[in-house]
Amino acid sequence: MGTTQLEAAPEPKYWHLKTVLSEALDSEFAVGEILPNERDLAARFGVARATLRQALEQLELEGRLQRRRGVGTTVAPPRMGVAVGSEHGTWPGEVGDAWQPVDCAPAQPPAEVARMLAAKPDEQVHVVRRTRVSHGQPVAAELLYVATSSVTELSAIDAPSGASRARGVLRELHRLGLEGQDRAVELGSARADDAKALDRLPGAPVLVVTTRFFAEGRTVAVSVATYRADTCRLTFGDAVGVEIHHGPERQAS
Amino acid sequence: MGTTQLEAAPEPKYWHLKTVLSEALDSEFAVGEILPNERDLAARFGVARATLRQALEQLELEGRLQRRRGVGTTVAPPRMGVAVGSEHGTWPGEVGDAWQPVDCAPAQPPAEVARMLAAKPDEQVHVVRRTRVSHGQPVAAELLYVATSSVTELSAIDAPSGASRARGVLRELHRLGLEGQDRAVELGSARADDAKALDRLPGAPVLVVTTRFFAEGRTVAVSVATYRADTCRLTFGDAVGVEIHHGPERQAS
Repeated sequence: MGTTQLEAAPEPKYWHLKTVLSEALDSEFAVGEILPNERDLAARFGVARATLRQALEQLELEGRLQRRRGVGTTVAPPRMGVAVGSEHGTWPGEVGDAWQPVDCAPAQPPAEVARMLAAKPDEQVHVVRRTRVSHGQPVAAELLYVATSSVTELSAIDAPSGASRARGVLRELHRLGLEGQDRAVELGSARADDAKALDRLPGAPVLVVTTRFFAEGRTVAVSVATYRADTCRLTFGDAVGVEIHHGPERQAS
Repeated sequence: MGTTQLEAAPEPKYWHLKTVLSEALDSEFAVGEILPNERDLAARFGVARATLRQALEQLELEGRLQRRRGVGTTVAPPRMGVAVGSEHGTWPGEVGDAWQPVDCAPAQPPAEVARMLAAKPDEQVHVVRRTRVSHGQPVAAELLYVATSSVTELSAIDAPSGASRARGVLRELHRLGLEGQDRAVELGSARADDAKALDRLPGAPVLVVTTRFFAEGRTVAVSVATYRADTCRLTFGDAVGVEIHHGPERQAS
């Protein structure tokens, strides 16, 4: 590997196999191509099935491989660069927003979100569900929690639920002066409903982006966005739309 | 869960168990406490060992549990908010930088990094290794690739390697006018050397942050930073240092 002088630590067998497999993917396989079955692969590389499986799991984690039911293991396309937010900060649903409103319903937020919104125990908030599609694929699902006290002008003619209700809540949110926002990114696992929206199995690794929106001197909305970790690379700043593929192995090895 | 009205999708058995376990962790266990063994837990919740194991893996993925060799499964402390970069942008190693230089050596960068640096095939660059400690724990390891053509003034008296060499390379980098930077975050798995630095096993899930530094109208340096995904929540903007714990389940359920 490129930085051998910096690599003192010994590598386990499956890890070495992963590196070899990764090189084979680059040189011998095309994107979308189906890999030989595990028995054949294990035989070719002279390793135990268990070792092979560990290596395949690593490559899947790094976005190099995709395992699909009824299809088998295929070579994954490069991860998509998906732009997350804007440094200057805009409200959800403002011009240029990549998200599509799907639904809206009143609900009690999870404890952590309630704390961020300084909501009272048992207090309900508007929960807007939105989805994001990029390059024709669903890449993220969002729950946007909006304090009811911040959008009091919802008129009686607004639909009680659905996408139009969601748009109504966002429209009212836009009346407030956005004072700032902050963001956190962490590893998570897809909940059943998110997994369905993202065409994944529940529990699939996801990148969870939590954004707090500040107005009126407090947090008026909290977005919890769940991005597919297998296909997405979240980009910040000028990197918007950059499509270079760099899985960790290829970045740092 | 809080947003039941939005959750139509059926949940698999292990997923329901995960939710129940998560609530049990909140109400019955303290941070650092060791969980009962799998047989006892499976018996208590009336599930098969395999189902229990799936649920435990999910909770580990979400940072709620830690499995440690020879210790067992313990309740994890809240994830740390770790500030990533600054919106205005500074050079690596400038005042306020949380990273410690460890080593520096010439090496050929991986293909993707070479492309970003517009390096010629077989061209070597300075590879600075740095580590980051937060709250007394190693949280991240970095490989910083610096184009040799950008730091030509390294004096003969600079050490040929080691931390002092690293500081010399950073010092020269600071002579350039930083024109901008961008950043990408993606899921990866820890390489053997990173895993060692982070006190993890090779292949452990990590958050890989790739930062490009622009000067002289081109990319002069590329940082590939590997953060522990189990203990870290990467924060951007004003969220610096915020210590609220919100595992995805508790965020969005």
